[in-house]
Amino acid sequence: VLLFPADFKDNLNKVYEAIEESDFLAIDGEFSGISDGPSVSALTNGFDTPEERYQKLKKHSMDFLLFQFGLCTFKYDHTEEKYVMKSFNFYIFPKPFNRSSPDVKFVCQSSSIDFLANQGFDFNKVFRNGIPYLNQEEERQLREQYDEKRSQANGAGSLSYISPSATKCPVTVPEDQKKFIEKVVEQIEDLLKNEENESLELEPCTGFQRKLIYQTLSWKYPKGIHVETLESDKKERYIVISKVNEEERKRREQQKQAKEQEELNDAVGFSRVVHAIANSGKLVIGHNMLLDVMHTIHQFYCPLPDDLSEFKEVTSCVFPR
Amino acid sequence: VLLFPADFKDNLNKVYEAIEESDFLAIDGEFSGISDGPSVSALTNGFDTPEERYQKLKKHSMDFLLFQFGLCTFKYDHTEEKYVMKSFNFYIFPKPFNRSSPDVKFVCQSSSIDFLANQGFDFNKVFRNGIPYLNQEEERQLREQYDEKRSQANGAGSLSYISPSATKCPVTVPEDQKKFIEKVVEQIEDLLKNEENESLELEPCTGFQRKLIYQTLSWKYPKGIHVETLESDKKERYIVISKVNEEERKRREQQKQAKEQEELNDAVGFSRVVHAIANSGKLVIGHNMLLDVMHTIHQFYCPLPDDLSEFKEVTSCVFPR
Repeated sequence: VLLFPADFKDNLNKVYEAIEESDFLAIDGEFSGISDGPSVSALTNGFDTPEERYQKLKKHSMDFLLFQFGLCTFKYDHTEEKYVMKSFNFYIFPKPFNRSSPDVKFVCQSSSIDFLANQGFDFNKVFRNGIPYLNQEEERQLREQYDEKRSQANGAGSLSYISPSATKCPVTVPEDQKKFIEKVVEQIEDLLKNEENESLELEPCTGFQRKLIYQTLSWKYPKGIHVETLESDKKERYIVISKVNEEERKRREQQKQAKEQEELNDAVGFSRVVHAIANSGKLVIGHNMLLDVMHTIHQFYCPLPDDLSEFKEVTSCVFPR
Repeated sequence: VLLFPADFKDNLNKVYEAIEESDFLAIDGEFSGISDGPSVSALTNGFDTPEERYQKLKKHSMDFLLFQFGLCTFKYDHTEEKYVMKSFNFYIFPKPFNRSSPDVKFVCQSSSIDFLANQGFDFNKVFRNGIPYLNQEEERQLREQYDEKRSQANGAGSLSYISPSATKCPVTVPEDQKKFIEKVVEQIEDLLKNEENESLELEPCTGFQRKLIYQTLSWKYPKGIHVETLESDKKERYIVISKVNEEERKRREQQKQAKEQEELNDAVGFSRVVHAIANSGKLVIGHNMLLDVMHTIHQFYCPLPDDLSEFKEVTSCVFPR
């Protein structure tokens, strides 16, 4: 089963289900490289202490990207007396979510890329259709951004995306914009008087003009209208104003919250699968697995701790068994 | 015109010809990222002095890979009174050439990769079929490696790949390998006595055994036989021994040299196109071109010099106009 972003959402419940019903799990990762310092064979040799191995990999392997994650779930079928296996293959890529989201830089090692290319690895699936992810701190920050926007919007009555204080006094409109704003206010007066029209689309205008409109309307009409910015096919932004009663306003607010929650889930992306593995408490096995575990924690949970004992603690939270 | 390694060799003369006959050239590069430090807009602003701009890009942009190089040649057709344009598009990837060649690490920036993905960029063409390259120092080193191998081979008569000193005294064969080596020598005595057989394939054996065979034969039979290692379909290495006279030996040596020269050319790869552009002395134009020029020199010529004035000197050698 190959999973891309669109597929991913549709199939996530199947993945959750497979994890839940399984007796144990196996994982394997593919990386964009192994070592940015010593050669791979020099990086890990049989004489390393566990602490040395951890420190070396932390120093020389963590700037690479885990860009394919394989998951197999195993469930014993008692009547058939055999294991039933389900396998999932996730391509992973930190596609920037919005302008303020982290713009991840990762290293590629030519020999690793060449090895994967020779195995028929499809790089387009990673870079075009990879599933995004956030670690816990990034998820927390994004959640805060949404909460902040929402509380601002509530403070400003039906208006969104402006700071509450801006609504408490008349807006200072620059001389050259006064005519423009007056015309907008006239249009809205017409809208409110006219019982037939429910909404009004303004002409596309500049970001500064939109800000003035938001501020003016928030001050002049704290209730009774809903203002939002949409984008035309030509990528021009324009404002739509609609009359709303209190009930309608609440419905819209809820709709918006649901949409935001979905956006947030999309951004957390593949990390949700890792959370599900962690929460399941199922036994996770793998071959030569230290690097896989380190990358999994580093990418989907938190920066790696300084020493091995702390790493073990974190790991026992993520993979309890 | 899209050019991959196989295509590349076949079409290189067309590229050379287009450069030679042109009145001027235009180039454009695509990179795996722009800035590993400040945001791209902060990296380059209109108030930079040329020296500042150079230092910033050198510090924050050079770990990315120039992985697509576009070349357009323009030639004025006086009878038709218009320009005739030829365009070439090269995908570039530092595929490791052999075990001792550099294993290049390069950085990718998610936002740049995402931008290219949205433009339909084909990453598989880069990573599976990209044309390799060497800078001047790497080319020099590889050339030296070949020269060294050749002079060693000459010193050891018809035998290749062993150090000359090893042939001057009888080889110390470990006790447990003596029987094996004796048997090989018997087989060769048979070969030399028998006038019908021209060559002899030995059974696949270990690298250590092959070394013992090379050393023993080089000492016992300094002339009259040719020894080489081949690889079977099963990737097992085995030794082939053939009788040669002096003429045959020279022919083989020349064949080998020609093959080595071709391997070397393949390894220098795309750098040959850049050399051709440089040697042509043609005017090279481009849009917002500093980063393209810096990457071109950095990847295909030499590490970037410390300051702008030296960079200008190097650039005037690579792009004389």
